[in-house]
Amino acid sequence: VAVLSDNSYGKSRVRLTKIVRNGAHHELLEMSVDILLTGDFAASYTEGNNAKVIATDSMKNTVYVLAKENKFTSIEEFAELLARHFAKTYAQVKSAAIVIRQPTWQRLSAGGKPHTHAFVDGGHEDRVCRATIEGQTLTLSGGLSGLRLLKTTGSEFRDFVLDCYRTLKDTSDRIFATSVEAEWAYAGEACDFNATFTAARQAIIRALADEHSLGAQQTLLAMGKAMLADCPAIASIQLTLPNLHRIPFNLEPFGLKNENEIFVPVDEPHGTIKGFIERD
Amino acid sequence: VAVLSDNSYGKSRVRLTKIVRNGAHHELLEMSVDILLTGDFAASYTEGNNAKVIATDSMKNTVYVLAKENKFTSIEEFAELLARHFAKTYAQVKSAAIVIRQPTWQRLSAGGKPHTHAFVDGGHEDRVCRATIEGQTLTLSGGLSGLRLLKTTGSEFRDFVLDCYRTLKDTSDRIFATSVEAEWAYAGEACDFNATFTAARQAIIRALADEHSLGAQQTLLAMGKAMLADCPAIASIQLTLPNLHRIPFNLEPFGLKNENEIFVPVDEPHGTIKGFIERD
Amino acid sequence: VAVLSDNSYGKSRVRLTKIVRNGAHHELLEMSVDILLTGDFAASYTEGNNAKVIATDSMKNTVYVLAKENKFTSIEEFAELLARHFAKTYAQVKSAAIVIRQPTWQRLSAGGKPHTHAFVDGGHEDRVCRATIEGQTLTLSGGLSGLRLLKTTGSEFRDFVLDCYRTLKDTSDRIFATSVEAEWAYAGEACDFNATFTAARQAIIRALADEHSLGAQQTLLAMGKAMLADCPAIASIQLTLPNLHRIPFNLEPFGLKNENEIFVPVDEPHGTIKGFIERD
Amino acid sequence: VAVLSDNSYGKSRVRLTKIVRNGAHHELLEMSVDILLTGDFAASYTEGNNAKVIATDSMKNTVYVLAKENKFTSIEEFAELLARHFAKTYAQVKSAAIVIRQPTWQRLSAGGKPHTHAFVDGGHEDRVCRATIEGQTLTLSGGLSGLRLLKTTGSEFRDFVLDCYRTLKDTSDRIFATSVEAEWAYAGEACDFNATFTAARQAIIRALADEHSLGAQQTLLAMGKAMLADCPAIASIQLTLPNLHRIPFNLEPFGLKNENEIFVPVDEPHGTIKGFIERD
Repeated sequence: VAVLSDNSYGKSRVRLTKIVRNGAHHELLEMSVDILLTGDFAASYTEGNNAKVIATDSMKNTVYVLAKENKFTSIEEFAELLARHFAKTYAQVKSAAIVIRQPTWQRLSAGGKPHTHAFVDGGHEDRVCRATIEGQTLTLSGGLSGLRLLKTTGSEFRDFVLDCYRTLKDTSDRIFATSVEAEWAYAGEACDFNATFTAARQAIIRALADEHSLGAQQTLLAMGKAMLADCPAIASIQLTLPNLHRIPFNLEPFGLKNENEIFVPVDEPHGTIKGFIERD
Repeated sequence: VAVLSDNSYGKSRVRLTKIVRNGAHHELLEMSVDILLTGDFAASYTEGNNAKVIATDSMKNTVYVLAKENKFTSIEEFAELLARHFAKTYAQVKSAAIVIRQPTWQRLSAGGKPHTHAFVDGGHEDRVCRATIEGQTLTLSGGLSGLRLLKTTGSEFRDFVLDCYRTLKDTSDRIFATSVEAEWAYAGEACDFNATFTAARQAIIRALADEHSLGAQQTLLAMGKAMLADCPAIASIQLTLPNLHRIPFNLEPFGLKNENEIFVPVDEPHGTIKGFIERD
Repeated sequence: VAVLSDNSYGKSRVRLTKIVRNGAHHELLEMSVDILLTGDFAASYTEGNNAKVIATDSMKNTVYVLAKENKFTSIEEFAELLARHFAKTYAQVKSAAIVIRQPTWQRLSAGGKPHTHAFVDGGHEDRVCRATIEGQTLTLSGGLSGLRLLKTTGSEFRDFVLDCYRTLKDTSDRIFATSVEAEWAYAGEACDFNATFTAARQAIIRALADEHSLGAQQTLLAMGKAMLADCPAIASIQLTLPNLHRIPFNLEPFGLKNENEIFVPVDEPHGTIKGFIERD
Repeated sequence: VAVLSDNSYGKSRVRLTKIVRNGAHHELLEMSVDILLTGDFAASYTEGNNAKVIATDSMKNTVYVLAKENKFTSIEEFAELLARHFAKTYAQVKSAAIVIRQPTWQRLSAGGKPHTHAFVDGGHEDRVCRATIEGQTLTLSGGLSGLRLLKTTGSEFRDFVLDCYRTLKDTSDRIFATSVEAEWAYAGEACDFNATFTAARQAIIRALADEHSLGAQQTLLAMGKAMLADCPAIASIQLTLPNLHRIPFNLEPFGLKNENEIFVPVDEPHGTIKGFIERD
């Protein structure tokens, strides 16, 4: 016989814009919220009995209501607040997991000063966070995804396995491009989430830009080390780096020599490098 | 100090087309392959020492070489073959995980018979599988994603939690639309993967189309039960159903009554329903 | 001085689901509507005077109200109806252009008969149409986009320009894959739009599947000829065919011969072939 | 009988990375090139005779070869160069149209100075241009697309048409968000394309950020006026502004008042505002 051994449900992609007005100076918070609950919901699967089911539409309403009723300046605070709300409000909820993605609007300048209320696209990058309550235990992480970086030199890849499947040549000067995905666990509950985000992001960029690379793996670890060095609030980091190849175009059929200047950027296939870095 | 406590790397989105010619009758296999290895690769992170690193470009080559050298009729067979290859060929590899996605081309008909060599788009749906080798242990799963289904009636949602966050009314007749994601574990290593895929897919469709629904949760379990009933080769199933809402448009401001016929389809936000079903 | 010499505005991506109930047998119509108006709207640009501006939100409402109030069985009928509505209702409107895209849900079968109310994804393909009213003149076109087709043989490409920029070899047996985009002008106002769509689509598929191809250009014209031959209601056709290349993978470095069986499918770059075909 | 009354063909999405090395200081140029030719190509459609057909693969090669052989610092220069090449090299070519999209990488800073070789994602925005040669006549335009801007106040929309289709209320304080698409014609052939791009982009941003808006139409014209005022090299401009709505969330069912602070951002439907502005 078939049995339901595990289940969860929730609402995904709840998008919210909140304006906080400090006089003429406006703060803009935009985000997309995902909610996932576990708990005593089996009867809705087995019998279609929805008595304990909180409609995902009600979850959506809750996001807007709590955004109105509470002050917060980071997505981490709001994620924790939502997770605690669902765990506290509904006896049938065993765990609540909240994931928030925040597009990175950048405040414009006006006459050398920050503009009070106008913003420009901050790129493909999203700031992300995750808050999970299970029983009394809160787990909180921050992160970013889609941070695209490229350097035109200072990157090698050589002396790797030589066997019958290899056709790639050693290179001591290549383009290195990636789109960083990072998730970090906070060491404790209380910290300056926004300052940590800024410092972590800067550490990633600096490690790519300034450290010579013998491979994407080495650069990944350099990023993790720089983040831990600069961000005392971070306990550990999961990093994922796609290797977004720029492939030298073969100019020989045309009687020309490609002096490391003409490349074909490709989206697929791409290398994927992962590492988990923690404090010793 | 920072330590690298875990790592993995590989190649993603290796796309392949293989034609198998049985005389004039051609088989078409298209797929996108992801490879992820773990093993003795820490030195590439810590020292930039790539001596044990199999280039992800070599992994890509391997996909095409093995596709040429081997006969296979399902993505599961090819995934297993690739996983075993990496585990067997390289002493430094501890585990190899292969994920394959297959777009579902459909053979055209010609004069009532299957066309020998022409195909049409099979929809947003992909067939998927996963093969992992760790030591001597192979884990193999099949699945599908993006199977879009909609029914215009035979779906209710009522008698759910009534509290101050609820604004949604009970309904005994709504549209139910979803995009099914399923991953199933095979009970043993040897089975007819293609027949199992076809039967599992049909079971999912039948459960949605023919069983009255008191909620997405109930329908999800009905799908899982039908799959286990029809597919002896399947041991357990992870199902994820987004609830792709069609929201009744309010016609009252225009002096009209919406008799359950005019809706706004929305992509976001959406409900997300998950369940894991296994044999007892 | 700067002058506004032309302007238009409207609403895009108005999505609608309509169910028509013939007893237990339900018709499902889903579509996404774009509206674009020209007319006496310059004051809204030059002075911020919105007195003649129909809010795009009101346009959106109009789509749902007219969908409720009217019977129609094709997107062409609904597009014409919307175009005539805006031109007739508002004196300030000079022209109204309506574009509708319809995702192609396919009715399921149940026990060999059409299911009364359940549907499955019909693929990446959209049916499209365009209705424009300018003064008293209606212009109406039908079409499709995203019809993906592939054949594994019956396609050549050879004897093209040989110069210093050419590296591609002649081939007398290649894969041909495309994603057809077609827009056809109707010969008159009254015709069976649904029957014409079905016949036009079948003509496209048949021309690709059954006619030997010396190049994408030749296949494009074959499609257009077949459409005009089969569809008396069609006066002329604009066809666009991307050439979605499957590139033979070079197996020689691995001591293997690629006997036209192992390919790399690529999305970019791609050829683009266009042609306009009309009756003589 | 069916006749081919018009035709064109070319290559789309040819992606290129070029590094120009001025000692340690590297310039990075990335772009995606589309080529479309018209001319004496009818025989390839009517007879499958490819004798005059330049393979789209050869067009692709040409992009890389010309990128190597020529110095250029803007996409406009390279587009013109490509257009002239095809028109000059092949007698059968009647017109050549080149469209280039350039992702906007931003150079990083290092210690307060521009980094020599590292870059970060410049956002969803692309710089674009178009060069067309027909006979001896060159037409050249510049532009941008995907420039996302948002302001939290300084935007009204009121006193528009009140009729039975209107439900939207007047507002004197709303969020205005858009994603600017602009194409401008150059007044002459020779100008500083890069300086013009920078000035045009800044004019667009300033008009949105600093001018009070009575509607998207008024803001569009303000952008166009600012561009013409700041950029003598620009003769005329086509602007398209989607109105990316932030819809106030109704908090009344929850006993709360939305004091213009909680919104739902939606991608669809959206307003679309277009205007063509030229010098008088």
